[in-house]
Amino acid sequence: MNRLCLHTVTIKPWSTEECISKFSAAGVGGITFWRYNLDGRDPAVVGKQAREAGLEIVSLCRGGFFPGKTAETRQAAIDDNRRCIEQAHALGAPLIVLVCGAVPGQPLEESRKQIADGIAAVLPDAEAAGVKLGIEPLHPMYADDRSAVNTMRQANDICDALGSPPMLGIAADVYHIWWDPELEHQISFTAAQGRLFAFHICDWKTPTTDLLNDRGLMGEGCIPIRQISDWVDATGFSGHREVEIFSNRYWAMDQDEWLTKITGAYRELYR
Amino acid sequence: MNRLCLHTVTIKPWSTEECISKFSAAGVGGITFWRYNLDGRDPAVVGKQAREAGLEIVSLCRGGFFPGKTAETRQAAIDDNRRCIEQAHALGAPLIVLVCGAVPGQPLEESRKQIADGIAAVLPDAEAAGVKLGIEPLHPMYADDRSAVNTMRQANDICDALGSPPMLGIAADVYHIWWDPELEHQISFTAAQGRLFAFHICDWKTPTTDLLNDRGLMGEGCIPIRQISDWVDATGFSGHREVEIFSNRYWAMDQDEWLTKITGAYRELYR
Repeated sequence: MNRLCLHTVTIKPWSTEECISKFSAAGVGGITFWRYNLDGRDPAVVGKQAREAGLEIVSLCRGGFFPGKTAETRQAAIDDNRRCIEQAHALGAPLIVLVCGAVPGQPLEESRKQIADGIAAVLPDAEAAGVKLGIEPLHPMYADDRSAVNTMRQANDICDALGSPPMLGIAADVYHIWWDPELEHQISFTAAQGRLFAFHICDWKTPTTDLLNDRGLMGEGCIPIRQISDWVDATGFSGHREVEIFSNRYWAMDQDEWLTKITGAYRELYR
Repeated sequence: MNRLCLHTVTIKPWSTEECISKFSAAGVGGITFWRYNLDGRDPAVVGKQAREAGLEIVSLCRGGFFPGKTAETRQAAIDDNRRCIEQAHALGAPLIVLVCGAVPGQPLEESRKQIADGIAAVLPDAEAAGVKLGIEPLHPMYADDRSAVNTMRQANDICDALGSPPMLGIAADVYHIWWDPELEHQISFTAAQGRLFAFHICDWKTPTTDLLNDRGLMGEGCIPIRQISDWVDATGFSGHREVEIFSNRYWAMDQDEWLTKITGAYRELYR
């Protein structure tokens, strides 16, 4: 249970304070905050509350969304990422997860270039703040408007192109990468480069009825989560297994019961 | 217009006979039949009707679905693919498109092996019948239950593993492969191997509201269709551009108007 981390968005109906107290009461080891958790709050206070509740702050979701059709839009994204870095620093989150962004109709090559440029622009801020940046490759079904970075290989290529800065790495989410025929190799390669910063779990349901908000709980889908998790652990990774589930179905149920289902599924997966 | 081919499923409400007469009247050059078009009909008669209407028969959709949890299931798939080859031969279709299959929960590696084994089993029948087999890499969002082959690279690997038989190649559909950072290279590589058997077009809508039946008409989405099409033509490919659109929305409208929209979008794309 110590390696279990919950993303607050997984239990979206709960307030920041409810997440902290209830995750803690459930014996969860870590918490990943989403930026909406900080709305109207002092990040330093939220961070203190979480740590005093015995939760390790794993990351802040999410930065990124660097591509834009105009220089102004791209600069606004860079500015926003700088604010995100400040927030993460104040919160005490060692890592920001980057959903890199894409613009429908803009060539993916152009978006990929803008992503690399955007990361390069904010990297000095991240380094100064002691906050790592984790590129999260997103499933190719999000290449239209969420991320032009869709495989671990591409994420590694960006890290390479930027000179392999130690503060830049990858957040690996099984939902996005489970289908990749190169997955086992990419996981070990990423870790060997010192870039495996985070590991997210959930499941892929058959059928999936919504491209965004129909993720499954571990065990109810087709992703070989334990297999992938074992590949991750085999690299020496000892970080958290972060449960990140967007689900209209689960968000509609009693959220205390939902949390119990999650911890139960986690225990079953790693027993 | 001569290179425009329509998949009958694109205008799903129409009968086989309506597709033939109306595609012909619209000046469409080619037709790809789906197997349901042959239900209760003699494939040889259907083929004759199409040719007499001035339509070139481009392919028959679809064979494949080789993986299965039991040897019996896999043998049944092989038997069905043999029937499909017989149908294509009688119809006069030079190509069968393979949607390779996947079984939720079965490791993708195992499904990929079963796919290669299945293709190897039916290849002699295809060769004897003079019918080509085109592996269609499917978008990774279909890796759960439709295809464990999700990139052109993987499809090429299967062709290589089976000894590059001339009757085995690839059907490239922009919907499935547009996001692939290797796309331009894979298209030219595939063509250089003599394996680029078919080219399918449609568009990716933002948002996409259904994983299966919400494809867009060319021009209303984010796929750089003309760019990809130019890469295809640059290899020397002179085959049809096949419009294959699954859309609950379009199937619900007047189908004569829908056909007019399609030919209009096609002309706009290639003017």
